[in-house]
Amino acid sequence: MIYVSRKEHFNAAHKLYNPSWTKEKNVEVFGPCANENWHGHNFDVIVTVKGYPDPETGFVIDLKKLSALIRAEVIEKLDHKNLNLDVPFMAGKMASTEILTKEIWKILEPKIPPISSFAQLHAVKLYETPRNYVEYFGD
Amino acid sequence: MIYVSRKEHFNAAHKLYNPSWTKEKNVEVFGPCANENWHGHNFDVIVTVKGYPDPETGFVIDLKKLSALIRAEVIEKLDHKNLNLDVPFMAGKMASTEILTKEIWKILEPKIPPISSFAQLHAVKLYETPRNYVEYFGD
Amino acid sequence: MIYVSRKEHFNAAHKLYNPSWTKEKNVEVFGPCANENWHGHNFDVIVTVKGYPDPETGFVIDLKKLSALIRAEVIEKLDHKNLNLDVPFMAGKMASTEILTKEIWKILEPKIPPISSFAQLHAVKLYETPRNYVEYFGD
Amino acid sequence: MIYVSRKEHFNAAHKLYNPSWTKEKNVEVFGPCANENWHGHNFDVIVTVKGYPDPETGFVIDLKKLSALIRAEVIEKLDHKNLNLDVPFMAGKMASTEILTKEIWKILEPKIPPISSFAQLHAVKLYETPRNYVEYFGD
Amino acid sequence: MIYVSRKEHFNAAHKLYNPSWTKEKNVEVFGPCANENWHGHNFDVIVTVKGYPDPETGFVIDLKKLSALIRAEVIEKLDHKNLNLDVPFMAGKMASTEILTKEIWKILEPKIPPISSFAQLHAVKLYETPRNYVEYFGD
Amino acid sequence: MIYVSRKEHFNAAHKLYNPSWTKEKNVEVFGPCANENWHGHNFDVIVTVKGYPDPETGFVIDLKKLSALIRAEVIEKLDHKNLNLDVPFMAGKMASTEILTKEIWKILEPKIPPISSFAQLHAVKLYETPRNYVEYFGD
Repeated sequence: MIYVSRKEHFNAAHKLYNPSWTKEKNVEVFGPCANENWHGHNFDVIVTVKGYPDPETGFVIDLKKLSALIRAEVIEKLDHKNLNLDVPFMAGKMASTEILTKEIWKILEPKIPPISSFAQLHAVKLYETPRNYVEYFGD
Repeated sequence: MIYVSRKEHFNAAHKLYNPSWTKEKNVEVFGPCANENWHGHNFDVIVTVKGYPDPETGFVIDLKKLSALIRAEVIEKLDHKNLNLDVPFMAGKMASTEILTKEIWKILEPKIPPISSFAQLHAVKLYETPRNYVEYFGD
Repeated sequence: MIYVSRKEHFNAAHKLYNPSWTKEKNVEVFGPCANENWHGHNFDVIVTVKGYPDPETGFVIDLKKLSALIRAEVIEKLDHKNLNLDVPFMAGKMASTEILTKEIWKILEPKIPPISSFAQLHAVKLYETPRNYVEYFGD
Repeated sequence: MIYVSRKEHFNAAHKLYNPSWTKEKNVEVFGPCANENWHGHNFDVIVTVKGYPDPETGFVIDLKKLSALIRAEVIEKLDHKNLNLDVPFMAGKMASTEILTKEIWKILEPKIPPISSFAQLHAVKLYETPRNYVEYFGD
Repeated sequence: MIYVSRKEHFNAAHKLYNPSWTKEKNVEVFGPCANENWHGHNFDVIVTVKGYPDPETGFVIDLKKLSALIRAEVIEKLDHKNLNLDVPFMAGKMASTEILTKEIWKILEPKIPPISSFAQLHAVKLYETPRNYVEYFGD
Repeated sequence: MIYVSRKEHFNAAHKLYNPSWTKEKNVEVFGPCANENWHGHNFDVIVTVKGYPDPETGFVIDLKKLSALIRAEVIEKLDHKNLNLDVPFMAGKMASTEILTKEIWKILEPKIPPISSFAQLHAVKLYETPRNYVEYFGD
């Protein structure tokens, strides 16, 4: 089993806000992340697939195809967007990095086998800042 | 003359939008940066001062004091904020990295001599992303 | 299960020296790392916790609280210190990155559940230099 | 169990080319990576060993010895070389990052215990670019 | 005057070889860089322009246009290419980073004003590796 | 004129301490940097030379020779050393990054022409941490 990873990036705005709480409680729990006028980040997303190399190409997956998939299915939907307002798959969910990482997994997981019969999704790693990141490996 | 630099960071939302233009023209010129629901970045700001080392300390400037100054005067006003809505010194200005860099210079320039009689401001460098950055050295 | 990581840093001095050996044997085994006048590093420490997101916040752990915990319990005790002389929990132990990583784990492991009922410690990763690092996942 | 990692680097040329295919099929599958005049990369290789710290040194492995091993057995054979033409252990194999990672594992795996009776090879991680990397943990 | 920079990257093969010398002299002078089967690098190129912000956009230059220019005129001609064999503007020249940097300047310098009437080229910085780089500011 | 840079690194211990002051005044001015048991850093030093490319090699300077010079004259004297106790050229001087940068310049400046008749020293840049650095360009 070999693990192959590709990094892509996007820039987005968000805020952390639980609509079932008062504004005061949101500020108390989320601090400046609850700023009602939003803040934002340069996110890096690293997608890891695992599998066996195709004997004809030496590839577990064609990284051009993996990059194109991530761009079409993830970056296109998140880059220069507002995670709370503009992203259908985040509607009604907390815009935390944890939840976003899991949603990116759910989008990509079924789409890996169609581009490589040798690979499956192993991990999604999402950097909110160079010092804060989240990883999800499925359930 | 010796040059001393300190890097700090902040996360903010913004959009590029000229209110004297139509929405269509804004989208045409600024593309996804004009998204009306905002987007955002992890900004890194590097402040460089120049001067001669104090013979008693070996310092051109005490970096603890320079860091405290940048945090109080710049980071505190920008971090987890919306550059278009929440930042008094950007009110009525285009929220481009160029303009923001120049405004940071204007804030810091008079405040360096009070914390070091051996130094003056030399440059402000602002990374909007790891691949896009702006520098200003005064006029 | 979702994994959430936070990076912090500290600067410290140390030497590698086994007091039950002669000075010559220490130099033979540890080379320049045995320099009796010490040397030092900028260390980066990455702490990873794992758990399930709190449905009310979307957080496995509040990263502000995790950062504050690491700063109070680890950085405060190590930053601008001498690992051999100034750090009670390293007294009588070899000041290797391996041993330090394990001791950081022992400090943090019981203190994660009090700040998040959804998380437990998963890993401590310690960079001695950008090219040398150690990871510990518990026993 | 503690995991210890060391990063080394090398610069090499390669192309992706299956000699049993036509030139057209190679270009169709591998795109610009099939350029017959080669292209190249700055590769970073991270080697991770796992084990228990030697009580006398605090080391799972002496990183000076691990670095020397990687340089002698891997870097020396790959740096400023052509992966398709100059590297005996890659002869007749696809010069993909996947295959190269696995071959590096096969070289290093038996050579770790001779330099540390406390350690065994855990992983080889190979960055082809800062955004593309491959990991192998043995079978 | 404000300075605005954009980073792009490409992967290429080259060798350092003076055809008017013997093979022996090439190896003596250039060492492994003269390997006749080539070696290669991941190059990063940073292009800096200087000028005054357009009052309507806040931009010295539209970074989308600068990025597109660099990609069309530089990256397209160098990425996954052999600097000695595949690049018309390097034909008959030493494939050193110094010469390549200067040639990139010559290509870009006249093409900046057409995309921004507020800017001119200030610098081209070319990283051959993370530890070796060259800068050119024109004559 | 073309500028060529090379990065090298070293790890060292130091403290900031003015022996003509009381211990209390040292702690007041230098804070934790005055810790009498030392602290330390991973320093990166970037040396920049400027000149014209040799028409026969395409080099302003042979980076193998520049790297060897920096290692012999700077790294060898600083790596795994105590800047206050072990380094003859720092004896009796404040061990600040400013002073160290200037002393490295003084060592290297006369030694560049002997290894390249096309180059002279332009700058020494010293990173004490990834967020604090000093540059010196001569007087």
